[in-house]
Amino acid sequence: MAFPPAPERFFASDNFSGTHPRYLEAVHRANAGHVRAYGGDDHTKKAVSLFQDLCDEDVEVLFTFNGTGSNIVALGSLLGPAESVICSEWAHIHVDETGAPEHALGIKLQDVPAPDAKVTPEHVHGLAGALGNVHHVQPGVVSITQATELGTLYSIEEIKTLCDVAHSYGMRVHLDGARISNATAALGGDAATFRAQTFGAGVDVVSFGGTKNAMMGAEAVLLRRGVASPRAEFIRKQNTQLPSKMRYAAAQFVEALSDGLWLETAAHANAMAALLYGHLSDITSLELVKPAVNSMYPLLPPQARVALQEWSFFWDWDLSRSQVRWMTSWDTSEADVDAFAAGVRTVF
Amino acid sequence: MAFPPAPERFFASDNFSGTHPRYLEAVHRANAGHVRAYGGDDHTKKAVSLFQDLCDEDVEVLFTFNGTGSNIVALGSLLGPAESVICSEWAHIHVDETGAPEHALGIKLQDVPAPDAKVTPEHVHGLAGALGNVHHVQPGVVSITQATELGTLYSIEEIKTLCDVAHSYGMRVHLDGARISNATAALGGDAATFRAQTFGAGVDVVSFGGTKNAMMGAEAVLLRRGVASPRAEFIRKQNTQLPSKMRYAAAQFVEALSDGLWLETAAHANAMAALLYGHLSDITSLELVKPAVNSMYPLLPPQARVALQEWSFFWDWDLSRSQVRWMTSWDTSEADVDAFAAGVRTVF
Amino acid sequence: MAFPPAPERFFASDNFSGTHPRYLEAVHRANAGHVRAYGGDDHTKKAVSLFQDLCDEDVEVLFTFNGTGSNIVALGSLLGPAESVICSEWAHIHVDETGAPEHALGIKLQDVPAPDAKVTPEHVHGLAGALGNVHHVQPGVVSITQATELGTLYSIEEIKTLCDVAHSYGMRVHLDGARISNATAALGGDAATFRAQTFGAGVDVVSFGGTKNAMMGAEAVLLRRGVASPRAEFIRKQNTQLPSKMRYAAAQFVEALSDGLWLETAAHANAMAALLYGHLSDITSLELVKPAVNSMYPLLPPQARVALQEWSFFWDWDLSRSQVRWMTSWDTSEADVDAFAAGVRTVF
Amino acid sequence: MAFPPAPERFFASDNFSGTHPRYLEAVHRANAGHVRAYGGDDHTKKAVSLFQDLCDEDVEVLFTFNGTGSNIVALGSLLGPAESVICSEWAHIHVDETGAPEHALGIKLQDVPAPDAKVTPEHVHGLAGALGNVHHVQPGVVSITQATELGTLYSIEEIKTLCDVAHSYGMRVHLDGARISNATAALGGDAATFRAQTFGAGVDVVSFGGTKNAMMGAEAVLLRRGVASPRAEFIRKQNTQLPSKMRYAAAQFVEALSDGLWLETAAHANAMAALLYGHLSDITSLELVKPAVNSMYPLLPPQARVALQEWSFFWDWDLSRSQVRWMTSWDTSEADVDAFAAGVRTVF
Repeated sequence: MAFPPAPERFFASDNFSGTHPRYLEAVHRANAGHVRAYGGDDHTKKAVSLFQDLCDEDVEVLFTFNGTGSNIVALGSLLGPAESVICSEWAHIHVDETGAPEHALGIKLQDVPAPDAKVTPEHVHGLAGALGNVHHVQPGVVSITQATELGTLYSIEEIKTLCDVAHSYGMRVHLDGARISNATAALGGDAATFRAQTFGAGVDVVSFGGTKNAMMGAEAVLLRRGVASPRAEFIRKQNTQLPSKMRYAAAQFVEALSDGLWLETAAHANAMAALLYGHLSDITSLELVKPAVNSMYPLLPPQARVALQEWSFFWDWDLSRSQVRWMTSWDTSEADVDAFAAGVRTVF
Repeated sequence: MAFPPAPERFFASDNFSGTHPRYLEAVHRANAGHVRAYGGDDHTKKAVSLFQDLCDEDVEVLFTFNGTGSNIVALGSLLGPAESVICSEWAHIHVDETGAPEHALGIKLQDVPAPDAKVTPEHVHGLAGALGNVHHVQPGVVSITQATELGTLYSIEEIKTLCDVAHSYGMRVHLDGARISNATAALGGDAATFRAQTFGAGVDVVSFGGTKNAMMGAEAVLLRRGVASPRAEFIRKQNTQLPSKMRYAAAQFVEALSDGLWLETAAHANAMAALLYGHLSDITSLELVKPAVNSMYPLLPPQARVALQEWSFFWDWDLSRSQVRWMTSWDTSEADVDAFAAGVRTVF
Repeated sequence: MAFPPAPERFFASDNFSGTHPRYLEAVHRANAGHVRAYGGDDHTKKAVSLFQDLCDEDVEVLFTFNGTGSNIVALGSLLGPAESVICSEWAHIHVDETGAPEHALGIKLQDVPAPDAKVTPEHVHGLAGALGNVHHVQPGVVSITQATELGTLYSIEEIKTLCDVAHSYGMRVHLDGARISNATAALGGDAATFRAQTFGAGVDVVSFGGTKNAMMGAEAVLLRRGVASPRAEFIRKQNTQLPSKMRYAAAQFVEALSDGLWLETAAHANAMAALLYGHLSDITSLELVKPAVNSMYPLLPPQARVALQEWSFFWDWDLSRSQVRWMTSWDTSEADVDAFAAGVRTVF
Repeated sequence: MAFPPAPERFFASDNFSGTHPRYLEAVHRANAGHVRAYGGDDHTKKAVSLFQDLCDEDVEVLFTFNGTGSNIVALGSLLGPAESVICSEWAHIHVDETGAPEHALGIKLQDVPAPDAKVTPEHVHGLAGALGNVHHVQPGVVSITQATELGTLYSIEEIKTLCDVAHSYGMRVHLDGARISNATAALGGDAATFRAQTFGAGVDVVSFGGTKNAMMGAEAVLLRRGVASPRAEFIRKQNTQLPSKMRYAAAQFVEALSDGLWLETAAHANAMAALLYGHLSDITSLELVKPAVNSMYPLLPPQARVALQEWSFFWDWDLSRSQVRWMTSWDTSEADVDAFAAGVRTVF
């Protein structure tokens, strides 16, 4: 097959991209002179304050290094003795963290079957049956991912209902927001939307992702006071997620939250996925689903798949059904989308 | 007391400083375009290769986020079932990591009394007596810090002897090198010196610190193959220390190792501590000891201490004996030292 | 409903029964005088030797307190860093141990759907796909239960095939033998049968149950040397499963293994389940399956269920389908079976 | 040397002894018929009630298998995130449990120097300095042993003061009572004495030992409600310490607590130690200290030591100072003491 020129950027993952120039500039500006380490600096104070504004609540804000770390700090701050975490079979904490939650916290994850990667009230009702029985692990936290690992979205109403059900059993709710920015952009695109699907809906702790959304290793955990452990800060430190030169992550979040850059980059990634879908949805054998955020999971015949991946790399998803993943990023350009779509057409 | 103008930079900690301009530039250059995440990029390959040259050995190189994380990956890669770690009572892993090693690895640390923060062969011989006794934890790793938490240095010969003793019992040796650059600068200042006090001496795994030596959140673990677990990479991931956008740390290490910048910055910090010592060693009540690397632990009367800290902040060390810590950094200037010394003189 | 007189013994669980008189006598005889603690006594030596004869192999034998403890010592002796355990969705380690394996060992269990509670080679092939991928936990052990938690049996050939598949991937095999005696009685009833379905088939570590088979808190872990950790003894101690007055468990095993008492009691329990099945198999709505060992899982309408449980207690199994469990024990008498069957008929 | 006939029983350890006949009889009586497993039986109810009477408080009572298990259930029920346990350098949990607390709970033990194996208020004040500092583990529990591992006793007043100090910092207090019976016998010999040195003094959780005091594998954890976790029962299960046939341990405790047998056996062991002291205190080179409970730690020249141990075994204690341990038990007879003393005289 004779492919057209490959796109400048891959459609492999949003962590293949670099850092937005404004975040790099923020890092530069924050570099001057000596400041207190471990969060005792003014950048951190400012970033915390901006997150509290965003949440419209006096949440505790803990900056961390990466998403797995955020999730462990979040879960560790919510779990009591002998408790488990209910999550979908597709959950990042269950599938993609090499058993880190079990290892770090000594906990059990109870994954539930979920073709759309979404936990339902029925799942929670079902597992709640074990509450009080000393022979069974005690479900303590429901962990959901928004946007999910399959690129789907919970509606705000769904999250609210799930939180209500969880709370009715005394469970708490964690939201893995590695792509909460993409979800927020998709569901409304403003601070109110963020609040509505997180603390407003009853979520207790949010892992707020920055790295997949144009930042350089910047993540945050947002914790509802009175629910999360008052020792959350110690839990972060003990789980090796306390940055010494915290100013760099904090300065990026200040930049992100000051004028909505975090939503702008996410909205762009979403738009590029929609554009790609528009280009290719007529190829029915791909079985493309209109993307809710920034990923698609098309079916590709093996030969076409391999040829395409050699031309412009992307990841396999579920080879048992010839499924791959295409993902856009904050820096994907329209030219990239056009070039990639042209290449895909070559194999059909 | 009327103090002179305070120095521009603090003498509090080497992690109060920012990032060397050349490392920032390296980050900038590395920012272009899409590259594989999790270490699949060329910056990482190059940095690994430079570390292997430095060690003159095919070590496994794992980049991490911070020192505590490095230490846990290192220890986790060396420990077998029911094993403990022998370390000094001053060891960072014992005192300053909030119990992270015990929490993350389920291990016991066996700290030994060490006024100079150095583990001795006698310590190892003593604890080795428990080997084979099922009622006692089994010493599996000796962990030393170079330069130590008290600013002292093991001689190369001391490290060699300690490694020989440890190995004679089947134990392995970890070196916490949060300030290995300062130690290397002090003991010889070249790659050969680094090798001689680490892998050449028999050390099995090194936590190589970058952040305290002018870098922006860049650390590495260097592991001797055949001794450390072949699963070390998985241990890093499971302990939340796998950076997705690894290019940034890697690019900094490429910059550091290409022409000796890592030794230049460390030598400068050491020199500034020596300069400060020279300015103040005549004040005998400070009980200053000529610094081996970049820190001093003077005695200060309470009133003088508080006044000085308000003027230019530094950390308390052991208030039971009125001891504080002064530390220089890669960016401490001669003017800073002069200004700080002048301020100290004000209270005497 | 007017019930006949209730049976003297319940059909609830084999751990509702007491201890066989011969085991009590063995305990008595072992009580005389002072002997070394922690297994340094002659009873322990003799019991170990009898187990090695039974296995026809120089297995390491570790006596423990209970089944959960045995399983944790077994798994802990087989697992390396970042490894998981493949088990059925019905596995005791997964469902009935309150997350103890995850808590004690920091490991992940990967449960597979198995309507008959049996892991298949396909399950292992499927999960083996993650081997070598740093983002996924690494399957290290396949854990099977014989007889299973649903009262089914693996054939010897099935176990052999499963072990071959597991070993082909470098995984090890654990057999939870809480009811291995019942399985052995059912599949042949002699030492050769035990060997054939365990070490002969390739199983690496066996949790050998005594308590459910007429003993007073006596369990053992049998470990293949060279595969299990040479530190297994330390792993037992560290997981709180080292009995100080070990003579009592050991003396019971000596009694059990000297003349086949362990198989006699298990065969009897199996026979009583078969007898009960014979009495009631004509009541088709119970959907009774001919028991392979000592348990049945009949369907009972709610009202009948509650009435029967008040008359002679037994456990619910899966109320979503009105299923309960009936289990016989070493001391269930024919009169008990007759009486229980008569009671059940009352509600039909 | 020509030794006299050796004593019938060793002076090695109180766990070298067997079980008191009355406890064996209690086990026999409890053996009849089917009863609920896991503590749902009447023996357990009765034993719990007797313990609550003994404590004069509605404590939660959890029976366990062994002392290490008790301690882990106790500590696990008291500890919060990032907390440590303050204990003496001689503490069983620190020295003799193969790192089980660190392994099972992921916690740090902070041992303090204590020549008499007793933690002091000064120790607690010293370590409390770390409270609130995120870089240091947070002392959460003070664990004391009564009688201590060196055979010394805290006075009731000392325990009270220590509890007050601990509580003033928000810490909780655990008492490892592996030999609390010996201590109670020594300090007053009645229930009031037990209460006074435990819950009356402010202790929050007690590991109550039975095995070293004539029982067959029977231990209990007594927990103050409102302080210990309401999930203590789950913590026991998760740490593999839930006996299925609990009736046997419970029946022994019923026997022990009904008429003071637990104090009778302990008082006898204490008396035999006192008798041995009386026989040998004139041999000044032994440096015998009058025993507070049932152990002594004499000095013996190497040759004499080896010869004596071959004649009648006992354990070494600290060979660096030629120190051994002699321990009496519930079944040590006056004839044993006379014979042992005569043997010792042979080497002097």
